[in-house]
Amino acid sequence: MSEIEFEKELKAERTNIPGMLVFDLPVHGDSRGWFKENWQRAKQTDLGLPDLGPVQNNISFNAERGVTRGIHAEPWDKYISVATGSVFGAWVDLRPGKSFGEVYTCVIDPSKAIYVPRGVGNSFQALEDGTAYTYLVNAHWSAELKKTYTFVNLADPELGIEWPIPLSECELSEADKHHPMLKDAIPMAPRRT
Amino acid sequence: MSEIEFEKELKAERTNIPGMLVFDLPVHGDSRGWFKENWQRAKQTDLGLPDLGPVQNNISFNAERGVTRGIHAEPWDKYISVATGSVFGAWVDLRPGKSFGEVYTCVIDPSKAIYVPRGVGNSFQALEDGTAYTYLVNAHWSAELKKTYTFVNLADPELGIEWPIPLSECELSEADKHHPMLKDAIPMAPRRT
Ligand SMILES: Cc1cn([C@H]2C[C@H](O)[C@@H](COP(=O)(O)OP(=O)(O)O[C@H]3OC[C@@H](O)[C@H](O)[C@H]3O)O2)c(=O)[nH]c1=O
Ligand SMILES: Cc1cn([C@H]2C[C@H](O)[C@@H](COP(=O)(O)OP(=O)(O)O[C@H]3OC[C@@H](O)[C@H](O)[C@H]3O)O2)c(=O)[nH]c1=O
Repeated sequence: MSEIEFEKELKAERTNIPGMLVFDLPVHGDSRGWFKENWQRAKQTDLGLPDLGPVQNNISFNAERGVTRGIHAEPWDKYISVATGSVFGAWVDLRPGKSFGEVYTCVIDPSKAIYVPRGVGNSFQALEDGTAYTYLVNAHWSAELKKTYTFVNLADPELGIEWPIPLSECELSEADKHHPMLKDAIPMAPRRT
Repeated sequence: MSEIEFEKELKAERTNIPGMLVFDLPVHGDSRGWFKENWQRAKQTDLGLPDLGPVQNNISFNAERGVTRGIHAEPWDKYISVATGSVFGAWVDLRPGKSFGEVYTCVIDPSKAIYVPRGVGNSFQALEDGTAYTYLVNAHWSAELKKTYTFVNLADPELGIEWPIPLSECELSEADKHHPMLKDAIPMAPRRT
Protein backbone atom coordinates (compact mmCIF):
# COMPACT_ATOMS: atom_id res chain seq x y z
CA MET A 1 0.00 0.00 0.00
CA SER A 2 1.29 3.47 -0.83
CA GLU A 3 1.98 5.93 1.98
CA ILE A 4 -0.85 8.19 3.12
CA GLU A 5 0.02 11.70 4.22
CA PHE A 6 -1.36 12.15 7.76
CA GLU A 7 -2.71 15.29 9.42
CA LYS A 8 -3.26 17.41 6.33
CA GLU A 9 -5.42 20.43 6.95
CA LEU A 10 -9.02 20.13 5.69
CA LYS A 11 -9.09 22.16 2.48
CA ALA A 12 -11.25 22.59 -0.64
CA GLU A 13 -9.97 23.44 -4.12
CA ARG A 14 -11.83 24.23 -7.31
CA THR A 15 -11.05 22.64 -10.63
CA ASN A 16 -11.55 23.53 -14.29
CA ILE A 17 -14.94 21.75 -14.10
CA PRO A 18 -17.44 24.26 -12.67
CA GLY A 19 -18.81 23.20 -9.27
CA MET A 20 -16.43 20.27 -8.85
CA LEU A 21 -14.35 20.37 -5.65
CA VAL A 22 -11.26 18.49 -4.49
CA PHE A 23 -10.78 18.11 -0.74
CA ASP A 24 -7.75 17.38 1.38
CA LEU A 25 -8.91 15.34 4.37
CA PRO A 26 -7.07 15.04 7.69
CA VAL A 27 -6.23 11.38 8.39
CA HIS A 28 -5.12 10.56 11.93
CA GLY A 29 -2.57 7.75 12.07
CA ASP A 30 -1.72 5.72 15.18
CA SER A 31 -0.53 2.25 16.17
CA ARG A 32 -3.89 0.75 15.20
CA GLY A 33 -4.01 2.17 11.67
CA TRP A 34 -5.84 5.41 11.01
CA PHE A 35 -9.14 7.27 11.44
CA LYS A 36 -10.76 9.92 9.26
CA GLU A 37 -13.89 11.93 9.04
CA ASN A 38 -14.52 10.95 5.44
CA TRP A 39 -17.34 13.48 5.23
CA GLN A 40 -18.18 16.13 7.85
CA ARG A 41 -21.18 18.20 6.91
CA ALA A 42 -20.58 21.31 9.04
CA LYS A 43 -16.88 21.80 8.34
CA GLN A 44 -17.23 21.04 4.64
CA THR A 45 -20.29 23.16 3.93
CA ASP A 46 -18.26 26.00 5.49
CA LEU A 47 -15.67 25.32 2.79
CA GLY A 48 -18.22 25.48 -0.01
CA LEU A 49 -19.48 21.89 -0.29
CA PRO A 50 -23.21 21.93 -1.06
CA ASP A 51 -25.32 20.47 1.75
CA LEU A 52 -25.44 16.94 0.33
CA GLY A 53 -28.40 15.39 2.06
CA PRO A 54 -27.14 11.91 1.20
CA VAL A 55 -29.66 9.08 0.77
CA GLN A 56 -27.25 6.34 -0.36
CA ASN A 57 -23.75 5.30 0.54
CA ASN A 58 -22.31 3.07 -2.19
CA ILE A 59 -19.13 1.02 -2.02
CA SER A 60 -17.35 -0.72 -4.85
CA PHE A 61 -14.57 -3.16 -4.14
CA ASN A 62 -11.98 -3.38 -6.88
CA ALA A 63 -10.15 -6.67 -6.51
CA GLU A 64 -7.17 -5.93 -8.74
CA ARG A 65 -5.04 -3.03 -9.77
CA GLY A 66 -6.34 -1.85 -13.13
CA VAL A 67 -10.07 -2.39 -12.59
CA THR A 68 -11.64 0.59 -14.38
CA ARG A 69 -15.26 1.83 -14.15
CA GLY A 70 -16.96 4.62 -16.09
CA ILE A 71 -17.52 7.10 -17.60
CA HIS A 72 -20.98 7.62 -16.04
CA ALA A 73 -22.91 10.83 -15.51
CA GLU A 74 -25.93 10.16 -13.35
CA PRO A 75 -28.84 12.35 -12.21
CA TRP A 76 -27.42 13.06 -8.75
CA ASP A 77 -24.41 14.61 -7.06
CA LYS A 78 -21.60 12.40 -5.75
CA TYR A 79 -19.12 12.81 -2.92
CA ILE A 80 -16.29 10.32 -3.44
CA SER A 81 -13.29 8.94 -1.61
CA VAL A 82 -11.55 5.63 -0.89
CA ALA A 83 -11.60 3.58 2.31
CA THR A 84 -8.42 1.76 1.37
CA GLY A 85 -6.15 1.63 -1.65
CA SER A 86 -6.09 4.40 -4.24
CA VAL A 87 -7.52 5.24 -7.64
CA PHE A 88 -6.75 7.45 -10.59
CA GLY A 89 -9.96 9.41 -11.13
CA ALA A 90 -11.07 11.08 -14.36
CA TRP A 91 -14.06 13.38 -14.74
CA VAL A 92 -15.65 14.80 -17.87
CA ASP A 93 -18.17 17.60 -17.88
CA LEU A 94 -21.25 16.33 -19.75
CA ARG A 95 -23.58 19.20 -18.98
CA PRO A 96 -24.75 21.24 -21.95
CA GLY A 97 -22.86 24.53 -22.15
CA LYS A 98 -19.42 25.87 -22.67
CA SER A 99 -17.66 23.56 -20.20
CA PHE A 100 -18.99 20.45 -22.04
CA GLY A 101 -16.06 18.07 -22.61
CA GLU A 102 -13.80 19.64 -19.97
CA VAL A 103 -11.64 16.92 -18.32
CA TYR A 104 -10.09 16.78 -14.84
CA THR A 105 -7.95 13.95 -13.43
CA CYS A 106 -6.23 13.26 -10.11
CA VAL A 107 -5.26 10.44 -7.76
CA ILE A 108 -7.57 9.76 -4.81
CA ASP A 109 -6.09 8.12 -1.74
CA PRO A 110 -7.79 8.10 1.69
CA SER A 111 -6.62 11.68 2.32
CA LYS A 112 -8.54 13.08 -0.69
CA ALA A 113 -12.24 13.42 -1.52
CA ILE A 114 -14.03 14.75 -4.59
CA TYR A 115 -17.39 16.42 -5.02
CA VAL A 116 -18.81 15.65 -8.45
CA PRO A 117 -21.91 17.62 -9.41
CA ARG A 118 -24.78 16.02 -11.31
CA GLY A 119 -24.04 15.83 -15.02
CA VAL A 120 -20.29 15.41 -14.65
CA GLY A 121 -19.13 12.01 -15.90
CA ASN A 122 -17.29 9.96 -13.29
CA SER A 123 -14.68 7.24 -13.77
CA PHE A 124 -11.73 5.70 -12.01
CA GLN A 125 -8.99 3.12 -12.30
CA ALA A 126 -7.83 1.19 -9.22
CA LEU A 127 -4.11 1.69 -8.61
CA GLU A 128 -3.86 -1.06 -5.99
CA ASP A 129 -5.30 -4.53 -5.48
CA GLY A 130 -8.18 -4.45 -3.01
CA THR A 131 -9.20 -0.82 -3.44
CA ALA A 132 -12.49 0.07 -1.70
CA TYR A 133 -14.13 3.09 -3.36
CA THR A 134 -16.91 4.73 -1.35
CA TYR A 135 -19.34 7.52 -2.18
CA LEU A 136 -22.44 9.32 -1.03
CA VAL A 137 -25.22 10.33 -3.42
CA ASN A 138 -28.30 12.50 -2.91
CA ALA A 139 -30.88 10.57 -4.93
CA HIS A 140 -31.92 6.94 -4.93
CA TRP A 141 -30.59 4.69 -7.68
CA SER A 142 -32.90 2.41 -9.65
CA ALA A 143 -32.26 0.24 -12.68
CA GLU A 144 -34.91 2.20 -14.63
CA LEU A 145 -33.07 5.48 -14.10
CA LYS A 146 -30.20 4.12 -16.21
CA LYS A 147 -32.09 5.46 -19.23
CA THR A 148 -31.38 8.98 -17.95
CA TYR A 149 -27.61 8.50 -17.53
CA THR A 150 -25.09 9.86 -19.96
CA PHE A 151 -22.07 7.73 -20.81
CA VAL A 152 -18.78 8.40 -22.55
CA ASN A 153 -16.11 5.96 -23.61
CA LEU A 154 -13.10 5.66 -21.30
CA ALA A 155 -10.87 5.19 -24.36
CA ASP A 156 -12.02 8.21 -26.39
CA PRO A 157 -8.79 9.83 -27.64
CA GLU A 158 -10.54 13.22 -27.73
CA LEU A 159 -10.65 13.14 -23.91
CA GLY A 160 -6.90 12.60 -23.73
CA ILE A 161 -7.08 10.76 -20.40
CA GLU A 162 -3.70 9.24 -19.61
CA TRP A 163 -4.75 6.07 -17.76
CA PRO A 164 -1.82 4.84 -15.64
CA ILE A 165 -2.54 1.26 -16.74
CA PRO A 166 -3.40 0.79 -20.44
CA LEU A 167 -7.13 0.04 -20.75
CA SER A 168 -6.36 -3.02 -22.89
CA GLU A 169 -4.82 -4.65 -19.80
CA CYS A 170 -7.69 -3.66 -17.48
CA GLU A 171 -10.82 -5.34 -16.17
CA LEU A 172 -13.90 -3.41 -17.46
CA SER A 173 -17.59 -4.28 -17.51
CA GLU A 174 -19.04 -5.19 -20.91
CA ALA A 175 -21.21 -2.06 -20.76
CA ASP A 176 -18.23 0.20 -20.14
CA LYS A 177 -16.44 -1.12 -23.24
CA HIS A 178 -19.17 0.17 -25.54
CA HIS A 179 -20.09 3.71 -24.51
CA PRO A 180 -20.15 6.38 -27.23
CA MET A 181 -17.32 8.79 -27.95
CA LEU A 182 -17.68 12.34 -26.68
CA LYS A 183 -18.77 13.61 -30.09
CA ASP A 184 -21.78 11.25 -29.96
CA ALA A 185 -22.54 11.64 -26.24
CA ILE A 186 -25.86 13.15 -25.27
CA PRO A 187 -25.41 16.05 -22.84
CA MET A 188 -27.17 15.42 -19.55
CA ALA A 189 -30.63 16.97 -19.42
CA PRO A 190 -30.88 19.80 -16.86
CA ARG A 191 -32.45 18.99 -13.51
CA ARG A 192 -36.22 19.10 -13.57
CA THR A 193 -37.46 21.90 -11.34
CA MET B 1 -9.87 -12.45 2.60
CA SER B 2 -12.80 -14.57 3.72
CA GLU B 3 -15.58 -15.31 1.26
CA ILE B 4 -18.47 -12.85 1.05
CA GLU B 5 -21.92 -14.23 0.36
CA PHE B 6 -23.27 -12.44 -2.72
CA GLU B 7 -26.88 -11.51 -3.57
CA LYS B 8 -28.42 -11.92 -0.14
CA GLU B 9 -31.83 -10.35 0.16
CA LEU B 10 -31.93 -7.01 2.01
CA LYS B 11 -33.29 -7.86 5.45
CA ALA B 12 -33.48 -6.36 8.95
CA GLU B 13 -33.39 -8.33 12.20
CA ARG B 14 -33.89 -7.20 15.77
CA THR B 15 -31.57 -8.14 18.59
CA ASN B 16 -31.82 -8.43 22.38
CA ILE B 17 -30.73 -4.76 22.57
CA PRO B 18 -33.86 -2.64 22.06
CA GLY B 19 -33.73 -0.56 18.87
CA MET B 20 -30.57 -2.18 17.56
CA LEU B 21 -30.91 -3.70 14.06
CA VAL B 22 -28.79 -6.13 12.05
CA PHE B 23 -29.06 -5.92 8.26
CA ASP B 24 -28.22 -8.35 5.52
CA LEU B 25 -27.05 -6.32 2.51
CA PRO B 26 -27.08 -7.53 -1.10
CA VAL B 27 -23.53 -7.47 -2.51
CA HIS B 28 -23.23 -7.82 -6.29
CA GLY B 29 -20.08 -9.67 -7.37
CA ASP B 30 -18.58 -9.60 -10.86
CA SER B 31 -15.20 -9.87 -12.60
CA ARG B 32 -14.16 -6.46 -11.24
CA GLY B 33 -14.88 -7.21 -7.57
CA TRP B 34 -18.20 -6.20 -6.09
CA PHE B 35 -20.65 -3.34 -5.59
CA LYS B 36 -23.07 -2.68 -2.73
CA GLU B 37 -25.53 -0.09 -1.59
CA ASN B 38 -23.99 0.15 1.87
CA TRP B 39 -26.89 2.32 2.99
CA GLN B 40 -30.08 3.01 1.04
CA ARG B 41 -32.42 5.34 2.86
CA ALA B 42 -35.72 4.46 1.17
CA LYS B 43 -35.43 0.65 1.22
CA GLN B 44 -34.05 0.57 4.75
CA THR B 45 -36.50 2.98 6.36
CA ASP B 46 -39.18 0.69 4.90
CA LEU B 47 -37.55 -2.12 6.92
CA GLY B 48 -37.60 -0.12 10.16
CA LEU B 49 -34.30 1.78 10.09
CA PRO B 50 -34.84 5.25 11.55
CA ASP B 51 -34.36 8.04 9.01
CA LEU B 52 -30.70 8.65 9.86
CA GLY B 53 -30.04 12.10 8.48
CA PRO B 54 -26.29 11.47 8.55
CA VAL B 55 -23.91 14.41 8.99
CA GLN B 56 -20.65 12.46 9.19
CA ASN B 57 -19.20 9.43 7.49
CA ASN B 58 -16.26 8.08 9.50
CA ILE B 59 -13.76 5.46 8.40
CA SER B 60 -11.23 3.66 10.52
CA PHE B 61 -8.53 1.59 8.91
CA ASN B 62 -7.32 -1.31 11.02
CA ALA B 63 -3.91 -2.33 9.80
CA GLU B 64 -3.67 -5.70 11.50
CA ARG B 65 -5.90 -8.55 12.55
CA GLY B 66 -6.61 -8.05 16.25
CA VAL B 67 -6.85 -4.26 16.35
CA THR B 68 -9.66 -3.65 18.86
CA ARG B 69 -11.54 -0.38 19.52
CA GLY B 70 -14.16 0.39 22.17
CA ILE B 71 -16.36 0.20 24.14
CA HIS B 72 -17.76 3.67 23.38
CA ALA B 73 -21.31 4.96 23.74
CA GLU B 74 -21.61 8.36 22.12
CA PRO B 75 -24.44 10.89 21.93
CA TRP B 76 -25.54 9.93 18.39
CA ASP B 77 -26.84 6.96 16.45
CA LYS B 78 -24.47 4.92 14.27
CA TYR B 79 -24.97 2.88 11.13
CA ILE B 80 -21.98 0.59 10.70
CA SER B 81 -20.46 -1.75 8.14
CA VAL B 82 -17.12 -2.63 6.58
CA ALA B 83 -15.76 -1.66 3.16
CA THR B 84 -13.27 -4.49 3.18
CA GLY B 85 -12.15 -7.14 5.65
CA SER B 86 -14.31 -8.17 8.57
CA VAL B 87 -14.73 -7.51 12.28
CA PHE B 88 -16.16 -9.18 15.33
CA GLY B 89 -18.50 -6.55 16.77
CA ALA B 90 -19.69 -6.35 20.38
CA TRP B 91 -22.37 -4.00 21.71
CA VAL B 92 -23.42 -3.24 25.26
CA ASP B 93 -26.57 -1.38 26.20
CA LEU B 94 -25.51 1.54 28.41
CA ARG B 95 -28.84 3.34 28.55
CA PRO B 96 -30.43 3.57 31.97
CA GLY B 97 -33.25 1.03 32.34
CA LYS B 98 -33.84 -2.65 32.39
CA SER B 99 -31.79 -3.46 29.30
CA PHE B 100 -28.65 -1.84 30.84
CA GLY B 101 -25.73 -4.28 30.44
CA GLU B 102 -27.37 -6.37 27.69
CA VAL B 103 -24.68 -7.64 25.26
CA TYR B 104 -24.94 -8.54 21.58
CA THR B 105 -22.11 -9.79 19.35
CA CYS B 106 -21.77 -10.78 15.69
CA VAL B 107 -19.35 -10.78 12.78
CA ILE B 108 -19.65 -7.93 10.26
CA ASP B 109 -18.39 -8.54 6.75
CA PRO B 110 -19.34 -6.36 3.76
CA SER B 111 -22.71 -8.13 3.48
CA LYS B 112 -23.83 -7.05 6.98
CA ALA B 113 -24.63 -3.66 8.55
CA ILE B 114 -25.64 -2.69 12.07
CA TYR B 115 -27.76 0.14 13.40
CA VAL B 116 -26.60 1.13 16.88
CA PRO B 117 -28.86 3.57 18.71
CA ARG B 118 -27.45 6.39 20.84
CA GLY B 119 -26.40 5.10 24.27
CA VAL B 120 -25.43 1.62 23.13
CA GLY B 121 -21.70 0.99 23.58
CA ASN B 122 -19.90 0.06 20.39
CA SER B 123 -16.73 -1.98 19.90
CA PHE B 124 -15.06 -4.23 17.37
CA GLN B 125 -12.04 -6.38 16.73
CA ALA B 126 -10.56 -6.61 13.22
CA LEU B 127 -10.51 -10.22 11.99
CA GLU B 128 -8.33 -9.48 8.96
CA ASP B 129 -5.33 -7.30 8.21
CA GLY B 130 -6.38 -4.12 6.39
CA THR B 131 -9.99 -3.97 7.56
CA ALA B 132 -11.75 -0.71 6.66
CA TYR B 133 -14.64 0.00 9.05
CA THR B 134 -17.09 2.66 7.90
CA TYR B 135 -20.05 4.30 9.63
CA LEU B 136 -22.55 7.11 9.40
CA VAL B 137 -23.55 9.22 12.39
CA ASN B 138 -26.28 11.82 12.84
CA ALA B 139 -24.47 14.40 14.99
CA HIS B 140 -21.14 16.15 14.60
CA TRP B 141 -18.22 14.88 16.65
CA SER B 142 -16.04 17.25 18.65
CA ALA B 143 -13.24 16.62 21.14
CA GLU B 144 -15.23 18.47 23.85
CA LEU B 145 -18.18 16.11 23.47
CA LYS B 146 -15.97 13.28 24.75
CA LYS B 147 -17.02 14.33 28.26
CA THR B 148 -20.53 13.12 27.42
CA TYR B 149 -19.49 9.66 26.23
CA THR B 150 -19.90 6.55 28.31
CA PHE B 151 -17.14 3.94 28.20
CA VAL B 152 -16.88 0.35 29.38
CA ASN B 153 -13.86 -1.89 29.50
CA LEU B 154 -13.47 -4.38 26.64
CA ALA B 155 -12.06 -6.93 29.11
CA ASP B 156 -14.79 -6.74 31.78
CA PRO B 157 -15.54 -10.40 32.62
CA GLU B 158 -19.11 -9.42 33.57
CA LEU B 159 -19.78 -8.69 29.88
CA GLY B 160 -18.62 -12.17 28.90
CA ILE B 161 -17.54 -11.10 25.42
CA GLU B 162 -15.62 -13.93 23.75
CA TRP B 163 -13.11 -11.97 21.68
CA PRO B 164 -11.83 -14.21 18.85
CA ILE B 165 -8.27 -12.95 19.51
CA PRO B 166 -7.26 -12.61 23.18
CA LEU B 167 -7.11 -8.90 24.07
CA SER B 168 -3.62 -9.35 25.52
CA GLU B 169 -2.37 -10.01 21.97
CA CYS B 170 -4.27 -7.09 20.44
CA GLU B 171 -3.44 -3.49 19.51
CA LEU B 172 -5.59 -1.13 21.63
CA SER B 173 -5.40 2.61 22.27
CA GLU B 174 -4.11 3.67 25.70
CA ALA B 175 -7.53 5.14 26.46
CA ASP B 176 -9.31 1.88 25.64
CA LYS B 177 -7.13 -0.05 28.10
CA HIS B 178 -8.43 1.95 31.04
CA HIS B 179 -12.20 2.27 30.78
CA PRO B 180 -14.27 1.35 33.84
CA MET B 181 -15.96 -1.99 34.40
CA LEU B 182 -19.69 -2.17 33.81
CA LYS B 183 -20.47 -1.92 37.52
CA ASP B 184 -18.73 1.49 37.58
CA ALA B 185 -19.95 2.73 34.21
CA ILE B 186 -22.17 5.78 34.13
CA PRO B 187 -25.37 5.13 32.15
CA MET B 188 -25.68 7.49 29.18
CA ALA B 189 -27.82 10.53 29.97
CA PRO B 190 -31.09 10.60 28.01
CA ARG B 191 -31.23 12.81 24.92
CA ARG B 192 -31.93 16.42 25.74
CA THR B 193 -35.25 17.50 24.26
C1 LIG C 1 -24.97 2.31 -9.12
C2 LIG C 1 -25.70 1.15 -8.48
C3 LIG C 1 -25.57 -0.13 -8.96
N1 LIG C 1 -26.24 -1.17 -8.37
C4 LIG C 1 -26.03 -2.56 -8.85
C5 LIG C 1 -26.32 -2.86 -10.26
C6 LIG C 1 -25.31 -3.95 -10.58
O1 LIG C 1 -25.80 -5.19 -10.09
C7 LIG C 1 -24.10 -3.59 -9.72
C8 LIG C 1 -23.01 -2.86 -10.45
O2 LIG C 1 -23.60 -1.82 -11.23
P1 LIG C 1 -22.91 -1.20 -12.53
O3 LIG C 1 -23.96 -0.50 -13.31
O4 LIG C 1 -22.06 -2.22 -13.20
O5 LIG C 1 -22.04 -0.06 -11.87
P2 LIG C 1 -20.49 0.28 -12.03
O6 LIG C 1 -20.01 0.06 -13.42
O7 LIG C 1 -19.75 -0.37 -10.91
O8 LIG C 1 -20.52 1.84 -11.76
C9 LIG C 1 -20.66 2.32 -10.47
O9 LIG C 1 -19.38 2.69 -10.02
C10 LIG C 1 -18.81 3.80 -10.68
C11 LIG C 1 -19.66 5.02 -10.50
O10 LIG C 1 -19.24 6.05 -11.38
C12 LIG C 1 -21.10 4.78 -10.78
O11 LIG C 1 -21.83 5.70 -9.97
C13 LIG C 1 -21.68 3.45 -10.48
O12 LIG C 1 -22.69 3.18 -11.43
O13 LIG C 1 -24.62 -2.80 -8.66
C14 LIG C 1 -27.06 -0.95 -7.29
O14 LIG C 1 -27.66 -1.88 -6.75
N2 LIG C 1 -27.20 0.31 -6.80
C15 LIG C 1 -26.55 1.38 -7.33
O15 LIG C 1 -26.69 2.49 -6.79
C1 LIG D 1 -14.67 9.70 16.61
C2 LIG D 1 -13.80 10.75 15.96
C3 LIG D 1 -12.44 10.82 16.20
N1 LIG D 1 -11.67 11.77 15.60
C4 LIG D 1 -10.20 11.77 15.78
C5 LIG D 1 -9.68 11.88 17.18
C6 LIG D 1 -8.39 11.10 17.11
O1 LIG D 1 -7.37 11.90 16.54
C7 LIG D 1 -8.69 9.99 16.10
C8 LIG D 1 -9.07 8.66 16.72
O2 LIG D 1 -10.03 8.89 17.74
P1 LIG D 1 -10.26 7.90 18.97
O3 LIG D 1 -10.99 8.64 20.03
O4 LIG D 1 -9.00 7.17 19.28
O5 LIG D 1 -11.33 6.93 18.34
P2 LIG D 1 -11.36 5.34 18.23
O6 LIG D 1 -10.80 4.69 19.46
O7 LIG D 1 -10.83 4.94 16.91
O8 LIG D 1 -12.92 5.09 18.24
C9 LIG D 1 -13.67 5.33 17.09
O9 LIG D 1 -13.89 4.09 16.47
C10 LIG D 1 -14.74 3.19 17.16
C11 LIG D 1 -16.10 3.80 17.34
O10 LIG D 1 -16.84 3.03 18.25
C12 LIG D 1 -16.06 5.20 17.85
O11 LIG D 1 -17.24 5.85 17.36
C13 LIG D 1 -14.94 6.07 17.47
O12 LIG D 1 -14.68 6.96 18.54
O13 LIG D 1 -9.75 10.50 15.30
C14 LIG D 1 -12.22 12.70 14.72
O14 LIG D 1 -11.53 13.56 14.16
N2 LIG D 1 -13.57 12.65 14.49
C15 LIG D 1 -14.38 11.72 15.03
O15 LIG D 1 -15.58 11.72 14.71
